[in-house]
Amino acid sequence: GSGTDNDLYINQAVVFIEDAIQYRSINHRVDSKSLWLYRWYYSRTCQWILSLTITIILALAFIENPSSLTVTSDVRYRLPAWNPPCGLTESIELLCFLVFMVDVSVKSYLIGWEEFWKNKWLMAYILTLIVSLTDWIVSLSFLCAEDVRIRRILRPFFLLQNSSMMKKTLKSINSTLPEMASVVLLLAVHLSLFTMFAMLLFARTKDGQQDKEWVGYFRNLPDSLTSLLVLLTTANNPDVMIPAYSKNRAYSIFFILFTVLGNLFLMNLLTAIIYNQFRGYLLKSVQSSLFRRRLGIRAAFEVLSSLKETPANAQQSYVSVGALLQVLQKVEMDCRCKQAITRSLKMCSCDQLSATQFQKLFEELDKDAIKQHPPSPEYQSHFMQKMQFAFGHPYFGYLGNVVALANIISICVVLVMDADKQPSERDDFFLGAINCFFILYYLLEMLLKILALGLKRYLSYPSNRFDGLLTVILLVLEIATFAVYGFPHPGWRPEFMGLLSLWDMVRLVNMLIVFRFLRIIPNMKFMALVVTTLLDLVKNLRAFAGILVVVFYAFAITGIMLFKGAVVPLGNIRFFYFFIFLFQTSFYIKIVVVYFKEKCDFMALFSDFQAEVIYCLLYLLFVNLICRWAKIYFVVWWLISSVIWVNLFVALLLENFIHKWDRRCHREPLSDIEYQRTVELMFRDVLEEPTEEELMEKLHQHPHLQLCR
Amino acid sequence: GSGTDNDLYINQAVVFIEDAIQYRSINHRVDSKSLWLYRWYYSRTCQWILSLTITIILALAFIENPSSLTVTSDVRYRLPAWNPPCGLTESIELLCFLVFMVDVSVKSYLIGWEEFWKNKWLMAYILTLIVSLTDWIVSLSFLCAEDVRIRRILRPFFLLQNSSMMKKTLKSINSTLPEMASVVLLLAVHLSLFTMFAMLLFARTKDGQQDKEWVGYFRNLPDSLTSLLVLLTTANNPDVMIPAYSKNRAYSIFFILFTVLGNLFLMNLLTAIIYNQFRGYLLKSVQSSLFRRRLGIRAAFEVLSSLKETPANAQQSYVSVGALLQVLQKVEMDCRCKQAITRSLKMCSCDQLSATQFQKLFEELDKDAIKQHPPSPEYQSHFMQKMQFAFGHPYFGYLGNVVALANIISICVVLVMDADKQPSERDDFFLGAINCFFILYYLLEMLLKILALGLKRYLSYPSNRFDGLLTVILLVLEIATFAVYGFPHPGWRPEFMGLLSLWDMVRLVNMLIVFRFLRIIPNMKFMALVVTTLLDLVKNLRAFAGILVVVFYAFAITGIMLFKGAVVPLGNIRFFYFFIFLFQTSFYIKIVVVYFKEKCDFMALFSDFQAEVIYCLLYLLFVNLICRWAKIYFVVWWLISSVIWVNLFVALLLENFIHKWDRRCHREPLSDIEYQRTVELMFRDVLEEPTEEELMEKLHQHPHLQLCR
Repeated sequence: GSGTDNDLYINQAVVFIEDAIQYRSINHRVDSKSLWLYRWYYSRTCQWILSLTITIILALAFIENPSSLTVTSDVRYRLPAWNPPCGLTESIELLCFLVFMVDVSVKSYLIGWEEFWKNKWLMAYILTLIVSLTDWIVSLSFLCAEDVRIRRILRPFFLLQNSSMMKKTLKSINSTLPEMASVVLLLAVHLSLFTMFAMLLFARTKDGQQDKEWVGYFRNLPDSLTSLLVLLTTANNPDVMIPAYSKNRAYSIFFILFTVLGNLFLMNLLTAIIYNQFRGYLLKSVQSSLFRRRLGIRAAFEVLSSLKETPANAQQSYVSVGALLQVLQKVEMDCRCKQAITRSLKMCSCDQLSATQFQKLFEELDKDAIKQHPPSPEYQSHFMQKMQFAFGHPYFGYLGNVVALANIISICVVLVMDADKQPSERDDFFLGAINCFFILYYLLEMLLKILALGLKRYLSYPSNRFDGLLTVILLVLEIATFAVYGFPHPGWRPEFMGLLSLWDMVRLVNMLIVFRFLRIIPNMKFMALVVTTLLDLVKNLRAFAGILVVVFYAFAITGIMLFKGAVVPLGNIRFFYFFIFLFQTSFYIKIVVVYFKEKCDFMALFSDFQAEVIYCLLYLLFVNLICRWAKIYFVVWWLISSVIWVNLFVALLLENFIHKWDRRCHREPLSDIEYQRTVELMFRDVLEEPTEEELMEKLHQHPHLQLCR
Repeated sequence: GSGTDNDLYINQAVVFIEDAIQYRSINHRVDSKSLWLYRWYYSRTCQWILSLTITIILALAFIENPSSLTVTSDVRYRLPAWNPPCGLTESIELLCFLVFMVDVSVKSYLIGWEEFWKNKWLMAYILTLIVSLTDWIVSLSFLCAEDVRIRRILRPFFLLQNSSMMKKTLKSINSTLPEMASVVLLLAVHLSLFTMFAMLLFARTKDGQQDKEWVGYFRNLPDSLTSLLVLLTTANNPDVMIPAYSKNRAYSIFFILFTVLGNLFLMNLLTAIIYNQFRGYLLKSVQSSLFRRRLGIRAAFEVLSSLKETPANAQQSYVSVGALLQVLQKVEMDCRCKQAITRSLKMCSCDQLSATQFQKLFEELDKDAIKQHPPSPEYQSHFMQKMQFAFGHPYFGYLGNVVALANIISICVVLVMDADKQPSERDDFFLGAINCFFILYYLLEMLLKILALGLKRYLSYPSNRFDGLLTVILLVLEIATFAVYGFPHPGWRPEFMGLLSLWDMVRLVNMLIVFRFLRIIPNMKFMALVVTTLLDLVKNLRAFAGILVVVFYAFAITGIMLFKGAVVPLGNIRFFYFFIFLFQTSFYIKIVVVYFKEKCDFMALFSDFQAEVIYCLLYLLFVNLICRWAKIYFVVWWLISSVIWVNLFVALLLENFIHKWDRRCHREPLSDIEYQRTVELMFRDVLEEPTEEELMEKLHQHPHLQLCR
């Protein structure tokens, strides 16, 4: 009947508008039941359960055999780790797989059969699930004693497929690969030509004294290649050239040429290429989000315009205001936006909305959320008004900064004076008294500011919240100190009491004071710019970070599987250490390289480094003579983490910073109004609105929606 | 009289056109004598003498006491260096100063008194000369035994003031300084806050076993600051955190946070800022060059239009073709351009030229020099024509590349097989025979190509010249080998004879073959792009490199003066070593840092490193306990060379590469026509032509030229 049809249309419009708000694709089934399923699937609870499942399955690696649930890292003091019995982690895994199976079936059903065959991600999802389940069955039938567990390596895929941002980013990275491969090829050519040169230059001579270079670095092809590759990471920098340089200083030309060409030119060329490819990346992704939003709104309009109540005589299609209000009631969206749209609908005198008017109504979604601070209290007394003026003035804030600086300086002076003293000689009186005074000032400042601004307005500034929270913590700590150790007096050096010693308490207070000093950041223009750039960057980097986690995870699991037998005397390598180790090597690739070099006397080194990470590595690399495989593994790791990822990061930073900088010059700062900036807003002035034709063409391609016209 | 006036106008026009060609400013005196002086000053001889003088005065540092004219660098084998007697270098210096005095007086005279007072560079030039001369007199009166020689530090100024590109670049760098200073300040804040945190975290404890971190890295404020600064250079990377990490792995958070914030964010922010500032740099500099050229041409037009022979009745001013031809005869310019302009003048039917026509004539100067390869010889015989087709075809070139690759691979195989053999076991027969075969092929290839293309056409391609030259050298070497050692046969292992042993000859041949393999570069599209980018970059980097040399020189001289007394047992530090050393530290800053760290047992290290450079440094830093000053010196050096300069380089590379890349996508490759590209041409499509009003306004501001209208 007509009523059912109308209900369906209303529901479709609701879903399309929600799609527009969330920047989702509208290509899904649109019959009543599917719409209900769709809204259920994208409800907060469902999505939360899915995220939780992904987190759980990824976190399993930390508990699984070999687990890494120990407190200290030092192998000498560490107790044996608790290993879960066979079947515990496996049953958790099975639960996760079940959730994923539901997820993939709902997703496949919703996009429809035809679309399913085109969607490679869904196919890969199903394939991954099948492989994982098979592996799980094999694992159980071996009673968890099998060596290779493929499903562990596949786990990060679940994280990947659940985030559209990550998929998009991966696509971008993928399109950069050919150019990156060219530069990597160029690097390889550079490396191999120079290796040949080096082998010819530093050949073995008859005089044993003269060929130190040959013995040390260029004994054969793999050695030479490694020496020069390591020179590319600048880890063995002057060492590799010293023997040759001692013999004849002209040899330094070879090394300088290699470094200049390789490190200065080719490596930076990689940065240039990646930056060049990613220059438009942010803009393009924001542009496609905008298109999705406009498309969703337009689809809602088209659906509503085919409601029976609309007069069919008009050339253009219209939507009645009543229907839209009905839809708006059902839509889940930000309260502020909903109110604003309803308000402008009521203000509009007309009864029918054209497509343009409809679109315009929903532009509220794109607008900055203007954050208005609550007003200050209005005092009647003249004295209070003066107080309010004095302590609400920015200069009072500056005075607070100066006092915080003075506090920092005083702590610094005490630290310098006490640096060499024995703990037993230390007199905590001076620092205790000073800190007591400063904390009282901070408390006073906070109270006066609250008096001047009112509690609500005070708390509406993030800097005040930061400030106030730290002041309260400091106050609590100080009171606790006095309660346990009494008031400070000369020779105030009580023994250990309670949870923390006095010295630890004082240190903690000092650290918090140093941390509180960061409140000066918003007061310095350039610093504020830098900090906001960094925060924006972190936001935009989420997708990249996710991909990095995926790569890390896969690499760590592969590493554990590859080098499992290598560390028998220590038990197995633990996932946690490998993870942390890989994280460190991406910055600290040098240490890997250093260990490659020091093949001979690693026992001397070993005595210095007790951390298990290093221990594992040493064992891995030198005792078990699997050096060559480890080399390849780490070279690939270096390329991915240190070369490619860092360059991606630099490219994104450049992109973000340059946009920010340009904007800073263009617009004037607005006082007292803070915009909540999103990436979309940053680009608003350069974004192109999609045309009507583009939108309608896309709508007509919709696989499930039959438009009347 | 009128004839004299006409002569003057003609001469002025000649000079203005020459100014336009060389992109020089036209703000100089324009009376007859000054014009003669101006042309003499900018004649090739004069400028060459000036450059030579600058080179000589800079090179003096290598000979001067303490001189560095020794062959080996090893302190154990080195003979005492020759020190020039007092008065020798000083008299050369005086000669140089005299040349500079002439230079500065001519320059000052030519730009005129009023302009002189505005020109800060000239003032600084005169000041530098006065200080240098005073110092020279002091030096002679002490019989060269004085300690401080300020004039040495001032020397690079002479290089700086002579290059307009370098002055322009310095101005650009100068305008970036405020932003760079902000980031450096941010780095300093980051460093000091973390230092305070570290001192509080890693304080001395009662248990001596537990405070390894304190003992090693955070004993007092300077130590802590150094440890963290060094962590910023990533030189002491995991070492600094190992003791704390062994105690409690949560400490690693501190170090990871520091590295991520400092190295990943702030350091890359510096790149972003410098790139952002330099984005428009190249374009702006090319734009101002264009303006100078147009201005010079316009000035010539204005001057010529006031010649008496021109009819004064016209509204617009005109220039007669005859006068222009007269001017063109006198102008020193590229032959091709002169011919092209004369040709189009003759083709033009008119007798008078308007300003626009005049300007258009000289646009020939901006045009690409199209390089037409000479034609191939035309053979009558059918057989020869077929031969020509076959060997002139690109496929023949590809075959040559394949053969070169095969040669490389064969050398590689032999190298791998012979890697571990004793020199006495080595059999050179195989390599000798193979190389003999390949070199014969190369000779044949060269001859056939010459046959097909004709000698002139063959030589007109740079890749062929490279190829042919190497082939000839290889042939000569091979013939020499056979002449001395006979033809290769199994067991061909003759003893040392003549200048080089057979083994050295073979190695040399192999190296040349590897080098010849670079001929494949133009055949690979991406490689060719990269190589041309690099070559362009080198062109654009000249000014930067010049400034770097200036900084290097000043730093090296300062270092020698500062640390002179520190190396008494070795004699003085030699300039050359310090120069080379600084060059290395800009890449190899890590070694400096390593030595800072290994304070205690440097004697062990010392036994490994014989190179004097390192010796000097060790002496400098640890024996004489002037560590603190050396620290500051090297930190400043690290900031300048490793941080700022490398970032400048990256910025320029990005700028160049992105322009190149965009162009590559826009334009189609033209076969057989090679453009000689200049930076100006790269930007031609984005350059703005100066308007008539701008030019005339600038002309009316000319301090010496009185225009009639």
